[in-house]
Amino acid sequence: MDSHKSMHIPRATIRRLAIYVQVLENLAREGTEIISSIPLAEACGVNGSQIRKDLAYFGEFGIRGVGYKVISLLAAITSALDVDREWKMALIGVGNLGKALLNHSDFRARNFNIVSIFDCDPFKIGEIVHGLEVHCTKEMPALVAENKIEIGLITTPPQRAQRAATHLVNAGITSILNFAPARIKVPSHVDVEYVDFFHHLYSLAFNHSATRA
Amino acid sequence: MDSHKSMHIPRATIRRLAIYVQVLENLAREGTEIISSIPLAEACGVNGSQIRKDLAYFGEFGIRGVGYKVISLLAAITSALDVDREWKMALIGVGNLGKALLNHSDFRARNFNIVSIFDCDPFKIGEIVHGLEVHCTKEMPALVAENKIEIGLITTPPQRAQRAATHLVNAGITSILNFAPARIKVPSHVDVEYVDFFHHLYSLAFNHSATRA
Repeated sequence: MDSHKSMHIPRATIRRLAIYVQVLENLAREGTEIISSIPLAEACGVNGSQIRKDLAYFGEFGIRGVGYKVISLLAAITSALDVDREWKMALIGVGNLGKALLNHSDFRARNFNIVSIFDCDPFKIGEIVHGLEVHCTKEMPALVAENKIEIGLITTPPQRAQRAATHLVNAGITSILNFAPARIKVPSHVDVEYVDFFHHLYSLAFNHSATRA
Repeated sequence: MDSHKSMHIPRATIRRLAIYVQVLENLAREGTEIISSIPLAEACGVNGSQIRKDLAYFGEFGIRGVGYKVISLLAAITSALDVDREWKMALIGVGNLGKALLNHSDFRARNFNIVSIFDCDPFKIGEIVHGLEVHCTKEMPALVAENKIEIGLITTPPQRAQRAATHLVNAGITSILNFAPARIKVPSHVDVEYVDFFHHLYSLAFNHSATRA
């Protein structure tokens, strides 16, 4: 099997791999040891040839006439994506959304750990939220280095998202997940992903109205 | 301008339109009245021809040599998508994530209102969360009809997502936004969107490792 270091995996494939991981985790939790490609593809909402093509990145995992070993396949995918190790994250913006994410057990379950939290509100600095002290953004470069933080989460209001991004970039962060409803500008070496669930609601609303017209 | 009822808008376009709405809202908040297509496209992270093509769905909004009127364009997009009216939503699964969403002011700001909340845990039923009483899922059909609920949000643990989906479908809901990390099966007339931010984290992690290799 190739190491992730020598692979290029398209973004759309990574998106599907995240779905496969989700489905395989649920199968493992239910005690399923082996699954054949048809029900696996169906559970993932893709067709059989797509799943075989995507899984081909990771070598030969299917057992002819039997199927895939759930645990081995899960391990192969997470290893190839390099998500089978701990990723340390900083969160900036300790409001409702930030607090909800700090309380979200899925992060820890998948080894994406928020280890430092920041806010620019002097009333919040020093407060303890879910066991972590809220730090002033001035302390970010030192804490990012000290805690070996690799990913920054932005959970500020939209007006403060750009400032938060600049703080993260200046602290040496090159991977940002932005939950704030605002676009941000960063240097080209910085990788930004946006979490915005309104396009999902817009899509549901539009299709709902179109269907009933 | 065409009504949304006679339009087909591809999903990828709806996704970009949600970004344009976000950017235009931020511009309106800052007091910007007119913006030309180049800086608008740049703020949205798309190229100029893409934005002109997307906005062509809504008729002629650009003023030649001047740009787009921020407020009019925002109104035209939200009207075409039918998101300039109230959408009533039910939430099923009143755990940490459900409570965080109930507390999320962006829903209300965009007129997507959670009006009924459900759980199957007898200890939660009857509890008041952010002003709403937690109802037993048995009451769902009556409350969906009474409150004219059109969208269901699933915020249960993954093992309960399918049951929650079945409850929503049986109550007459045809539009579901699933925040639970599990795939669900629904009849073909039901529209499901998935919110899963792990594929974003996986993408950041993979690119981070690949860049440093």
